[in-house]
Amino acid sequence: MVNITAPLRIGYVLFPAFTAMDVFGPLQVLNLVSITHNMTLSLLSTDLEPVSVDRTIVDGVSGGMLGSSASPDFTQFVLPTHTFSDAPELDVVFVPGGAGARNINGTQPHVDWLRRRLAMDDDPHQQQQQQQLKYVMSVCTGASLVARTGRIAGRNATTNKAAFTWVRSVEHAEDVNWIARARWVVDGNLWTSSGVSAGTDMTLGWVEHMYGRNESERVRVMMEWNALNRTDDPFAGYYGLT
Amino acid sequence: MVNITAPLRIGYVLFPAFTAMDVFGPLQVLNLVSITHNMTLSLLSTDLEPVSVDRTIVDGVSGGMLGSSASPDFTQFVLPTHTFSDAPELDVVFVPGGAGARNINGTQPHVDWLRRRLAMDDDPHQQQQQQQLKYVMSVCTGASLVARTGRIAGRNATTNKAAFTWVRSVEHAEDVNWIARARWVVDGNLWTSSGVSAGTDMTLGWVEHMYGRNESERVRVMMEWNALNRTDDPFAGYYGLT
Repeated sequence: MVNITAPLRIGYVLFPAFTAMDVFGPLQVLNLVSITHNMTLSLLSTDLEPVSVDRTIVDGVSGGMLGSSASPDFTQFVLPTHTFSDAPELDVVFVPGGAGARNINGTQPHVDWLRRRLAMDDDPHQQQQQQQLKYVMSVCTGASLVARTGRIAGRNATTNKAAFTWVRSVEHAEDVNWIARARWVVDGNLWTSSGVSAGTDMTLGWVEHMYGRNESERVRVMMEWNALNRTDDPFAGYYGLT
Repeated sequence: MVNITAPLRIGYVLFPAFTAMDVFGPLQVLNLVSITHNMTLSLLSTDLEPVSVDRTIVDGVSGGMLGSSASPDFTQFVLPTHTFSDAPELDVVFVPGGAGARNINGTQPHVDWLRRRLAMDDDPHQQQQQQQLKYVMSVCTGASLVARTGRIAGRNATTNKAAFTWVRSVEHAEDVNWIARARWVVDGNLWTSSGVSAGTDMTLGWVEHMYGRNESERVRVMMEWNALNRTDDPFAGYYGLT
């Protein structure tokens, strides 16, 4: 259990066509933790316009889009609470995945912002001016945005099993040590989960790390969540990854 | 597997302080199904204003609110796609739970709208004018809103296990046959799930019912979801229900 002396400030990166449960599974955990522990939960985007939820999937091998996009009349939108430029100081950043992660140009502002936050780790001058980011958490193909910052070379990480090959193909991803069989991977302050539902298991694991097993179990039973542990990964085999 | 001859029109009821995962778990399933099957997914509210996600829980026995509400600066909001009055014709309605379900006055418009939709089952004249609702699905304490319509007397249903006593106390709930030990319960066109995560298992079960096992499994592995079956309920015992 980590000794916490101040409220934790947690931000979620939103981009168009993010996968809803990559955000709202982990956030469900933290919404419940925030009842008993002092934390702020912010949703961050380039501006305050509503951000769309994905209803398309993308072929893991070719990167081709499958299925039809939703009609604009039926698109689901979530409101950011802050922009990147007016974001509060943050201790923890969550990065979801989704069809929109394949939009390299569209997510470049998000990657650039992440790179600046991650760069603080190595810049003692900046650390004096800004709070250091304590944890970077990615869910599903959100790992591709973190990899694209070029700041996690040599680190262990995992990602969505159906999209594993694609994530390994993005810029700078060849420098990352991708772990195929893992519900989630912890390497220092970098926590990365497998696809969609795995983000919620990782978040419960992180709550245990931060606040202890009693708190993670309190939240898990409140959510009636059927948990998998860090090394439980039935999906790597399903997708032929070893 | 049901023989489907037309696109399915599915609506979610949103009320202030709904539980995010009660909506976005089932919706994650259906967003993926909607890639291969023709359906519309709408988010319905009294008006088009953003609807808040809950960050409070409520004591299951006394009904008292626990924990602090979120600061307005950090409230999560989802945008409705339609109002009740301009809602498209619907085949299926999902009702989430959440702290806001305890707000009886605040959710009365939602209950009144649900009652009118459910009433169609018994009114052959109305059926000629409007499509009949084929399925009513509730997640977590969303069952309290369905019970309050007074239209499910004598039916089998379940709900959140931590809030079981409270749900049984709402108006008309004494006429419902509440099943304590069940991940979800099916009684004709009424599908009701246990708390939060159980709604996603129920939705996968409903996808199997509608589209077959291959489709529900395609979506489950895409979500990397660790499923519980209809009769798997480790949480009833945890909360001392038999």
